[in-house]
Amino acid sequence: MPRVAVLTIGDELTSGRVVDRNASTLATRLRDAGIETPIHLTCGDDEDVIVRWLRTAHEAADVVVTTGGLGPTDDDVTHAAVARWAGVELELHDDVLETIRHRFTDRGIVMPEPNRRQAMLPAGATVVPNPLGTAPGVVLEREGKWVVTLPGVPRELAPMLEETVVPFLRTHFRIESVVKVRILKTFGFTESRLAEILAGVSVPAHGGLRIGYRPIFPEIHLSLTASAADEATAVAWISEYEERVRPLLGHRLWGVDDDELAGVVLDGLRRGGLRLATAESCTGGLVGKLLTDVAGSSDVYERGFITYTNEAKQDLLGVPPDLFAPGGAGAVSEACACAMALGARERSAADVAVSVTGVAGPSGGTADKPVGTVWIGVSTRDGTSARMHFYPGPRSWVRTLSAYTAIDSIRRVVLQLPDLDPLARPPRR
Amino acid sequence: MPRVAVLTIGDELTSGRVVDRNASTLATRLRDAGIETPIHLTCGDDEDVIVRWLRTAHEAADVVVTTGGLGPTDDDVTHAAVARWAGVELELHDDVLETIRHRFTDRGIVMPEPNRRQAMLPAGATVVPNPLGTAPGVVLEREGKWVVTLPGVPRELAPMLEETVVPFLRTHFRIESVVKVRILKTFGFTESRLAEILAGVSVPAHGGLRIGYRPIFPEIHLSLTASAADEATAVAWISEYEERVRPLLGHRLWGVDDDELAGVVLDGLRRGGLRLATAESCTGGLVGKLLTDVAGSSDVYERGFITYTNEAKQDLLGVPPDLFAPGGAGAVSEACACAMALGARERSAADVAVSVTGVAGPSGGTADKPVGTVWIGVSTRDGTSARMHFYPGPRSWVRTLSAYTAIDSIRRVVLQLPDLDPLARPPRR
Repeated sequence: MPRVAVLTIGDELTSGRVVDRNASTLATRLRDAGIETPIHLTCGDDEDVIVRWLRTAHEAADVVVTTGGLGPTDDDVTHAAVARWAGVELELHDDVLETIRHRFTDRGIVMPEPNRRQAMLPAGATVVPNPLGTAPGVVLEREGKWVVTLPGVPRELAPMLEETVVPFLRTHFRIESVVKVRILKTFGFTESRLAEILAGVSVPAHGGLRIGYRPIFPEIHLSLTASAADEATAVAWISEYEERVRPLLGHRLWGVDDDELAGVVLDGLRRGGLRLATAESCTGGLVGKLLTDVAGSSDVYERGFITYTNEAKQDLLGVPPDLFAPGGAGAVSEACACAMALGARERSAADVAVSVTGVAGPSGGTADKPVGTVWIGVSTRDGTSARMHFYPGPRSWVRTLSAYTAIDSIRRVVLQLPDLDPLARPPRR
Repeated sequence: MPRVAVLTIGDELTSGRVVDRNASTLATRLRDAGIETPIHLTCGDDEDVIVRWLRTAHEAADVVVTTGGLGPTDDDVTHAAVARWAGVELELHDDVLETIRHRFTDRGIVMPEPNRRQAMLPAGATVVPNPLGTAPGVVLEREGKWVVTLPGVPRELAPMLEETVVPFLRTHFRIESVVKVRILKTFGFTESRLAEILAGVSVPAHGGLRIGYRPIFPEIHLSLTASAADEATAVAWISEYEERVRPLLGHRLWGVDDDELAGVVLDGLRRGGLRLATAESCTGGLVGKLLTDVAGSSDVYERGFITYTNEAKQDLLGVPPDLFAPGGAGAVSEACACAMALGARERSAADVAVSVTGVAGPSGGTADKPVGTVWIGVSTRDGTSARMHFYPGPRSWVRTLSAYTAIDSIRRVVLQLPDLDPLARPPRR
């Protein structure tokens, strides 16, 4: 298998002004085609530096795929650098110039003179056509080492990769292996707890299966990547590992591949013919936002109450006023979470309601109810209950964890799973 | 000035599963402190490869700042690699272990055994404390070359950079120039429109002032970075440019530096003794979420209604049912947006209410009301009105732009500014 290095080029990348998404796009797409990209490099639009990094990258790689620096302006120097690396001249490709000119004349305008530069390509290079833009790329070989150039515009890069570069690399390097990826998605583990669990599961010695973590706060995803001679073997390797690990992940495993937690919950409700209402205090709308991120949520998600004040909790949800009186349980309490969930269900067309009330901080914490104390209530026709969770941390962290826990609590009720054990309890005085 | 290379480490980066944002964060923040990062490298969690790339990077740089690979699991090998690079052993730092242990015991749980690894640091290294996580970084020198390690979690990396790494680099490399950064924050421009406007404003020829764009969707921030011999000069350069550009930005400029749009709006309401209610349909809680991201919003933000169904709009906000009947204006209409805003104000303790109703897509669009059509209503004691905006695009894009426009609409009412001109109008049949 060839070793491929990715070299992304642009002053906007080294200055930090633009986040480099092309490296990730290239790596993902090439990996799915069975090609690893163990090395990523980034440098500015500087001919000397590009030449130096092409040489450095080739010490560890057979192919360097570059992005960027193919535009019409003076600071676009990638093809000049590639020509120097190969010891050849830049030469005008008449057919490429005609293609570029046509992109303009088709829109009724004259090609600006600077675009002529984009038809100046290293001698001996094979052109990589750009169906969506003026800048073509090239493939060039020197002494068994290869350079592939692509533009920096993500929209233009993708089809060039797909239509020309991937087929070229797979054919040229005779890549016959099939790569399959399976993602297992969990909520409720810390990364280290998950590592402890997986330490007990052996990975097959043949080396064709790779297990990786992908913490996407507050979820942790597990990737199973199999590279095998044929699809059946790759699928079998993944299935075998997945079957062994599933019982260990338990109900904290909520989905696979493209599943979204809110989508899984909405699907479960939809299958049961159930509608949902939300009552939010400290999350202030975040639970509703996450549910409605999912297109088509409107047939299940009926309404939401953002009751940020005690008056709103009383007015909209019928929370008893004596909860807020001196000596009452207060807004962050089991009684209030239950009253909010029950009120939301009764004052809507929903069958299931979830409530969140907690101390998101940074102020408002007490010895009894420190920042991070969150009560989550769920109400159905079968009853209403609430559970305390403790997520000490910055405001956005408390809120995000609380909102995900609320959505996961609905999942557990709908799928009749046991409650999630709280990760931690607040300190006792 | 030192030459600094950024080395981001993680299989999730080389595999393309995760877009590398840390390189951009580091480059931006270091640049603001007067330090350039001309080289970015990325490699996987592989000790041999990390050691090799530390050596390669040091050929062109004085300092290598790494991110990632400091976690508690076996695949976190950055400190082992750094120790090998420096020719020293890893040793247990008792004080670091105690700090890590406390992070768990403070939450009432026992430290998992794997976290002990995070206290194994290269001998002779200076610890970079991590105020928000278990993994500390280190600073280590060998023969005049430096390595600085930071965790890969963006939330943890930022304060470590700010509090320890930047002051260290500036002191050690005797960076005496004073760097001042001023951020002007706008909403309602496209990047190309803003570029056109700024093309007419000359930047001083002395080269000490640099103007940069930071599109942080859906806002565009403008950074004015001055690097001068003393603070007074840097401040003067920034002020002079700011005074020239402010009139051109108009009311689309809503804040500076650490201001948040929701915070500016809440402050304006607070100063006027006004309370706010929200009524959301297509944004599903996102407006409430953005408002309550701001700590202390509870004295101003009174309550919110997430009325995702027509029934909820009628029940909770008193929207007339005939709007939803055949021949009625429908849920996405001026009449509905006005009725929602008025209903939210009348059925709450709020003085100002904002409403959002639109077609977020991907389905549900019609020739009359294509995806991206959004009505935003505002109601105060002085009256109620609504305005149409057209944001054709993917669901998350429509929702985010709609929510920001809603918050900006409150700002314009509270500060008595003219309405924002819609960026585009939907096509007529």
